[in-house]
Amino acid sequence: MSLLVVGSVALDSVQTPDERRDDVLGGSAVYFSVAASFFAPALLVGVVGEDWPAQHTEMLQKLRVDTSGLQVIPGGKTFRWTGKYLPNMNDRETLEVHLNVLEQFNPKLPENFRKSKFVFLGNDSPINQMKVLDQADGRLLAVADTMDLWINIQRDKLDEMLTRIDGLVLNDSEAKLLTGDENLVRAGHKVREMGPKFVVIKKGEHGAMFFSEHETYVMPAYPTAQVVDPTGAGDSFAGGMMGYLAERGDFSPKSLKTAMAYGIVVASFTVEDFSLERLKQIRRADVDRRLEEYQQMLTF
Amino acid sequence: MSLLVVGSVALDSVQTPDERRDDVLGGSAVYFSVAASFFAPALLVGVVGEDWPAQHTEMLQKLRVDTSGLQVIPGGKTFRWTGKYLPNMNDRETLEVHLNVLEQFNPKLPENFRKSKFVFLGNDSPINQMKVLDQADGRLLAVADTMDLWINIQRDKLDEMLTRIDGLVLNDSEAKLLTGDENLVRAGHKVREMGPKFVVIKKGEHGAMFFSEHETYVMPAYPTAQVVDPTGAGDSFAGGMMGYLAERGDFSPKSLKTAMAYGIVVASFTVEDFSLERLKQIRRADVDRRLEEYQQMLTF
Repeated sequence: MSLLVVGSVALDSVQTPDERRDDVLGGSAVYFSVAASFFAPALLVGVVGEDWPAQHTEMLQKLRVDTSGLQVIPGGKTFRWTGKYLPNMNDRETLEVHLNVLEQFNPKLPENFRKSKFVFLGNDSPINQMKVLDQADGRLLAVADTMDLWINIQRDKLDEMLTRIDGLVLNDSEAKLLTGDENLVRAGHKVREMGPKFVVIKKGEHGAMFFSEHETYVMPAYPTAQVVDPTGAGDSFAGGMMGYLAERGDFSPKSLKTAMAYGIVVASFTVEDFSLERLKQIRRADVDRRLEEYQQMLTF
Repeated sequence: MSLLVVGSVALDSVQTPDERRDDVLGGSAVYFSVAASFFAPALLVGVVGEDWPAQHTEMLQKLRVDTSGLQVIPGGKTFRWTGKYLPNMNDRETLEVHLNVLEQFNPKLPENFRKSKFVFLGNDSPINQMKVLDQADGRLLAVADTMDLWINIQRDKLDEMLTRIDGLVLNDSEAKLLTGDENLVRAGHKVREMGPKFVVIKKGEHGAMFFSEHETYVMPAYPTAQVVDPTGAGDSFAGGMMGYLAERGDFSPKSLKTAMAYGIVVASFTVEDFSLERLKQIRRADVDRRLEEYQQMLTF
């Protein structure tokens, strides 16, 4: 079934303890779309500037991503993020953020995107996220991401948005901030009580937790010896998860659990190289093979 | 099969964000023995002072722990540890350590302990740990714990000890310190290359990782909404793991994996109350029920 993603499209500069890459392809909607593409083509809505290299759009199109919702702002500059990873490769510092065209981003869904059944609201202001919900009136499932910024400065709008979505995906530190609870199990359920029917807490190298009214579970990250660049792991997780659900066409507890596992596995590929490099090299069979290994790993 | 544990026996004072308990039963060998008691009775070797309450020994004996290796030093004082947990309940500060009788501890195995098949060397100096290995000459499997102190001050002895054991259990931060590698997957295998045939890295609230020549896997912690006191979780994990192996009487890859799961489940009970309170309340059936839930949680 159709899968819509609205989120950032970026040029990232990333510094790890070993290497540095400048102006590489990034952004939540891009990681999401490429991760989802193993399962279902995504309809992408985002914004870039005139400096956006056409090759990135072509790459996305080759992966069956519909880029007709990608707004190009004449004279504008693409959103840029510069970050530096600490030696543990799990924590990072944001060194520079240039919102550029993202500052005035007003999500507009092309007519044929409005009937999307599966909708993912990448990290953006809750106001923008609700604008998408207003337009995506054919949806069966809406899942959103958020971040500390919106928890801190647009809490009332965020609270409103939370009552309108089916699922929320957020980081452990964000779940703690949103609920004031340091215990992630309690925090997960407290977030769920704010509106979404299910909540996923991402724990970086420690995996992810799932919360619904009747279920609480944790899935570890796939153990990776060579973490080259963790950027986009969380968005790849969401893309793998939502892509699988869109492929299945349902979001039963069983499908959601397998979707979590696929999300974890796809994210484990993302971190093996900079930017989208690793995801571009692999195919569905590689994802399935690792999923099987992962499943084996958890069987005793 | 017989299970020997040599380690600390302590009176702990624990401060959590909500509560404080003074002079409660603790120590690695005690948590280990009680956790193991669901599976196999332990033979305990340790040392206490004259201030040691007899009721603790009686409690251990009721759980079929053989306390004939518990040395009581006349005029001596029992080892005391005082610690404070941070609001996340995963990190802690040690406020006070009084080694007392532990300072001169010289592990002596009663004659009938020497033929123990399964041996656990609780966290102690590698010199003392090797004294135990010298005496436990009927062992099939020797597993040790260690800590940052010995990594920092007795590295050569620790290296020697590592070549004489079959398995090592240590914390994530200790694995990083021991190998100088921030990636836990690499660190685990590097520790393994120092001698032990298998290595278990404990990650606190994030579970545990297992490394052998042919296997690398991660198991998440059981999600617990009410963490009251995490003290002893790591030792309970080791006790559950070794207890199950001793019960099985083997340490095949399959048994080791189930043992890891049992360790995680027993540890999840330990943190639900102070000291040994929770473990004393439950029975094997409770452990098995949670193991089943845990197994279900990891199945997709």
